[in-house]
Amino acid sequence: MRWTKTFIQTLRDDPADAEAVSHKLMVRASLVRQLSAGVYSYLPLGKRVVDRVAGIVRDEMNRAGAVELTLPVMHPAELWQETGRLEAYGDALCKFKDRKGHLNVLGPTHEEVITDIVRNANLSYKQLPLNLYQVQVKLRDEARPRFGVVRTREFIMKDAYSFDVDAAGLDRSYQIMYDAYVRIFRRCGLDAKPVEADPGLIGGDVSHEFSVLAPAGEDEVVFCPKCGYAANKEKAECRAAPPPVNVNLETAELLPTEIKETPGAHTVDQVAAFLGVPPKDIVKTILFETNDGPLAALVRGDHDVNPMKLQRAAKAAKLEMATPEFIQKATGGPIGFSGPVGLKARIIVDGAVATMRNFVTGANQRDRHLMNVNPSRDFRQDLTADIRFAMPADPCARCGGKYEFHTGIEVGHVFKLGTKYSAKMHCEYLDDKQQRRPMIMGCYGIGVTRVVAAAIEQNHDAAGILWPKELAPWQAELVTINQKDGKIQLAGQEAHDALEKAGFDVLWDDREVTPGVKFADADLIGLPLRVTVGKRTIESGTVDLQRRRDKAQKSVPLKEVAAAVREEWNAL
Amino acid sequence: MRWTKTFIQTLRDDPADAEAVSHKLMVRASLVRQLSAGVYSYLPLGKRVVDRVAGIVRDEMNRAGAVELTLPVMHPAELWQETGRLEAYGDALCKFKDRKGHLNVLGPTHEEVITDIVRNANLSYKQLPLNLYQVQVKLRDEARPRFGVVRTREFIMKDAYSFDVDAAGLDRSYQIMYDAYVRIFRRCGLDAKPVEADPGLIGGDVSHEFSVLAPAGEDEVVFCPKCGYAANKEKAECRAAPPPVNVNLETAELLPTEIKETPGAHTVDQVAAFLGVPPKDIVKTILFETNDGPLAALVRGDHDVNPMKLQRAAKAAKLEMATPEFIQKATGGPIGFSGPVGLKARIIVDGAVATMRNFVTGANQRDRHLMNVNPSRDFRQDLTADIRFAMPADPCARCGGKYEFHTGIEVGHVFKLGTKYSAKMHCEYLDDKQQRRPMIMGCYGIGVTRVVAAAIEQNHDAAGILWPKELAPWQAELVTINQKDGKIQLAGQEAHDALEKAGFDVLWDDREVTPGVKFADADLIGLPLRVTVGKRTIESGTVDLQRRRDKAQKSVPLKEVAAAVREEWNAL
Repeated sequence: MRWTKTFIQTLRDDPADAEAVSHKLMVRASLVRQLSAGVYSYLPLGKRVVDRVAGIVRDEMNRAGAVELTLPVMHPAELWQETGRLEAYGDALCKFKDRKGHLNVLGPTHEEVITDIVRNANLSYKQLPLNLYQVQVKLRDEARPRFGVVRTREFIMKDAYSFDVDAAGLDRSYQIMYDAYVRIFRRCGLDAKPVEADPGLIGGDVSHEFSVLAPAGEDEVVFCPKCGYAANKEKAECRAAPPPVNVNLETAELLPTEIKETPGAHTVDQVAAFLGVPPKDIVKTILFETNDGPLAALVRGDHDVNPMKLQRAAKAAKLEMATPEFIQKATGGPIGFSGPVGLKARIIVDGAVATMRNFVTGANQRDRHLMNVNPSRDFRQDLTADIRFAMPADPCARCGGKYEFHTGIEVGHVFKLGTKYSAKMHCEYLDDKQQRRPMIMGCYGIGVTRVVAAAIEQNHDAAGILWPKELAPWQAELVTINQKDGKIQLAGQEAHDALEKAGFDVLWDDREVTPGVKFADADLIGLPLRVTVGKRTIESGTVDLQRRRDKAQKSVPLKEVAAAVREEWNAL
Repeated sequence: MRWTKTFIQTLRDDPADAEAVSHKLMVRASLVRQLSAGVYSYLPLGKRVVDRVAGIVRDEMNRAGAVELTLPVMHPAELWQETGRLEAYGDALCKFKDRKGHLNVLGPTHEEVITDIVRNANLSYKQLPLNLYQVQVKLRDEARPRFGVVRTREFIMKDAYSFDVDAAGLDRSYQIMYDAYVRIFRRCGLDAKPVEADPGLIGGDVSHEFSVLAPAGEDEVVFCPKCGYAANKEKAECRAAPPPVNVNLETAELLPTEIKETPGAHTVDQVAAFLGVPPKDIVKTILFETNDGPLAALVRGDHDVNPMKLQRAAKAAKLEMATPEFIQKATGGPIGFSGPVGLKARIIVDGAVATMRNFVTGANQRDRHLMNVNPSRDFRQDLTADIRFAMPADPCARCGGKYEFHTGIEVGHVFKLGTKYSAKMHCEYLDDKQQRRPMIMGCYGIGVTRVVAAAIEQNHDAAGILWPKELAPWQAELVTINQKDGKIQLAGQEAHDALEKAGFDVLWDDREVTPGVKFADADLIGLPLRVTVGKRTIESGTVDLQRRRDKAQKSVPLKEVAAAVREEWNAL
């Protein structure tokens, strides 16, 4: 393939708005062009890489027994109403009314559609398990598209859905996908760590995401170097803190509560400074509205409430941060001064608060806090649970080791959905007694376009991209120095034809530009091998063969270029 | 591949709403399932066929020097405003407002997006010509989705866009695509006729569509069997009719006009019956609103105005059927009684009217018509042009032969756009004198999913589909009679493995169902070859090899099944 026929338009300068190295390199190397915020066109070079990723994904999905189909981008809103997700997805869902006035959803994911297809197939237990997947465009109206193709409003995703007769079947299907994902990311040249995750809007009880550690990630991954436990920040478990060293829970003297004027101090830091106590001796009372009425979450002043954990602990179908008006009504005081004493709300206490004594809380009155508050004596603990985000250096919930935090890109996510969709949508099979039972589902996503960015994050140097072997858009770049020289052109043609004949994908930089430009662009677009034809080829019949990654170079006879490239390629 | 792992769910009965044979067979053979009106999921079998079509399309596009990329589904509405198509497309455009309040278009076609990319690349004449294509999901809010996947609201299309420095370059690019299309449709097993077409909303001056003659088509194709001229109904040229046999244009006596009361008669048929004249002696006056004011089109009573021809003849940027209020205002009379005499409007006369004498028209008064109206004497002819639809048995505009009408499915369309988009969007190149000039564009579409339906329309029998060789989802179906018999299973496995090892795509019907069901399903899904393993295989070591199309059958040794299938396949 000739460069001049391929519409590769490299740029010297980084795009002004780019933060992530993958974003900069994908634009400069002519993989993508932005059309609007979070919406990208894939130029020919980028398209080839996306195809490589999709090819690996299909290969491993097929190997794992999944079957490919294609589901529509536009869905009737009624399907999303059946599962309640039309509302739950909120603004992130792209929707439009058609000319007949029907509302349509532009699918960010396809649980509803695939469940509809499978329920209509009237399957028996003999026809299960089943795993159906697609590679399809998804739309999601992200509030803050970021990092090039890492977080976008339009992207290509592989999504698979498994259907089993029971939990043991789901466990098997899940493990098969988990193992396929490990293979897929390894083939894509990624160091992708499987971490426990919260299923979020997709639902279900168990999920893992595959996180590629990289600065352009938006995932905070919590990792214990001692026992290997890994989870994302939403999911990472917290060990209930031991009581403060100076407090014996059995014998601690419970001091009498005391109201203190704290004029103007309503953040934890302001109160701590004003009262001269550390933030960890203050307890925050955060109010939420739930379908069951007001809910107060108590966490240490230096901790943050994790709404996903809280919602699970509370078993609340709906949970939202309370508005200032709601707080005023529930506590009698303004926002910033809430406390558990005398509060008419369900109270859930974080494990780290349960062991504290004589702490500071809001007094439910403007500019006032309460000193020496104690659980049970001063307020009712309806439930004690892990409801906070883990913090760096927290003790590991499993082994007591010390948590490390890393930034990762979520490239894949596998979920045990159970009956979340099949029960609501009546997706059932006939068992061996002709009884209808809900199917047990799993779902499994890979961000195909995001994998491209993640691969660059982990494979680049100052000069450009270092494509992992299986993702390279072409295997080798052929550079002809002085394209106008007829002899060099002929030698270039010979090398090109020999390589193509041997089955290699070659990109021939046949432009009439300086060698410096060609070499810089070759480094930028990052094909694993480079073959240079120049004056020396005419004089001595040799070409230069260079590896992109370590720049190791050797001279090989033009006549043997295909064999030499074969040897280098196999050794990569 | 085993049937039981493939999610093929054949149906015995036709879907209730299906008219077209391709629609019926695609649902029954488990290629597609409808999700909502004009929106289909492609099940695994259908997905494989779509991939075959897309594979052929990519193969021939690459061979023709086009380069593949992927453009987004969602476009900022601003781009569509630049070309005026945000309005021109009307209700057929799917649009949604995102959370920031910006309007987005869901692309039914991608001229705007590709032109935006190419204009930003700052190309010089040395980098042209260029041909970029994609295979992508398109959305179009059709008023009347029909015939299964023939006319849908969501479909997969291949769209290519060429960029040249001059008209001669465009002619070359157009011809290259035209030739590629001929190859593509031939490989898809289609008899696709290239016909002249009106470019419609896409624009430009020259276009051809590729029409597959089939009852499920919505295209009316006009064909002259004498000279081979072919055009779609919108485009087909009409020869100006010779004067009626009893009228000599030079000497015809122009009778005096006369007002006749025609109470209650306002359609042509009513007036003809009332006055006792044939409809072809009546002249219809149809009013339109244009950007230049009212326009009257005069056609014979038995002819119909072709708005596309009229708009071109009038050179009107905008042309719409007049409302009853507008007609009342422009003519002074109600709808149904318009006529050219005394009319304050631009008057365009069809070629067939120009030679008529002493005809009937409306009198611009309720329940009155004028007899013996004559051009020039009674009204001003601003322009005489071909502004009507051709009719069956009309004389061919080229040779005078007799037009035939056929129904066709438009599977492809190629357009010479010229500067329609590049001028409006300033998509320019630098010429050899460093002057900026608009690029000369072409665009080229193939309805990938529609090709599947068209292929079935032309390749089926009473029992099911007859896949053209290159579209077959698998090359051969392996049927094992009595799946529970261990020996037959083993023999089936042997045949399956031998065929796969020889590189064939085989579908093994391994279900525990009766032979009758297996054979009926084999006929329905229509793989070109069928291999049957049964009792005879155990007794005599032979299998039956049958061609689907003509049911020709022979017995071959199990040990030689791969060679026998190879021979049959090569002979297809």
